[in-house]
Amino acid sequence: MEILDPGAVDAALRGGAWERQGSEIVTTRRGADFADSLAFVNAVGALAEDMDHHPDVDIRWNVVTLRLSTHTSGGITRKDLDLARRIDSLSGSG
Amino acid sequence: MEILDPGAVDAALRGGAWERQGSEIVTTRRGADFADSLAFVNAVGALAEDMDHHPDVDIRWNVVTLRLSTHTSGGITRKDLDLARRIDSLSGSG
Repeated sequence: MEILDPGAVDAALRGGAWERQGSEIVTTRRGADFADSLAFVNAVGALAEDMDHHPDVDIRWNVVTLRLSTHTSGGITRKDLDLARRIDSLSGSG
Repeated sequence: MEILDPGAVDAALRGGAWERQGSEIVTTRRGADFADSLAFVNAVGALAEDMDHHPDVDIRWNVVTLRLSTHTSGGITRKDLDLARRIDSLSGSG
């Protein structure tokens, strides 16, 4: 897949819950507690399986950090932006 | 809870899947894929909820890293070792 240039990524992410950090895009979601985090991660996991594209996931009790990059392409692609948008549409995210 | 001294922690962990890193204990579990990782994290989450004690969790596709510390005590306590042992008893871990 084509790697997007940083300016295009920033434009696509503007005003949303994700930001570009180097060759990946990152979001942090603060929920109620660990169980709430895990429910969110399971919902993200279902989307990830559906797209066969998987974020790096960090759970720190009520805080979940997701990082997306297209490793096979070596950067950020349309696939990352698409999954980010689908994750944002989950109820309770952001 | 009482903070255990490093030697006691090392002795308790000897031969197992966890190691002490500073003021926490850490294990890494390599599974089949993202779905397998998520199933493992859900099993860990059930134990964590049961003990009201929650590890930091990192998922990198088929690799899960867990970190345990008793933040209210500022170090490693019996509670961390107990949860580590229960996690090790999960089928498919390690």
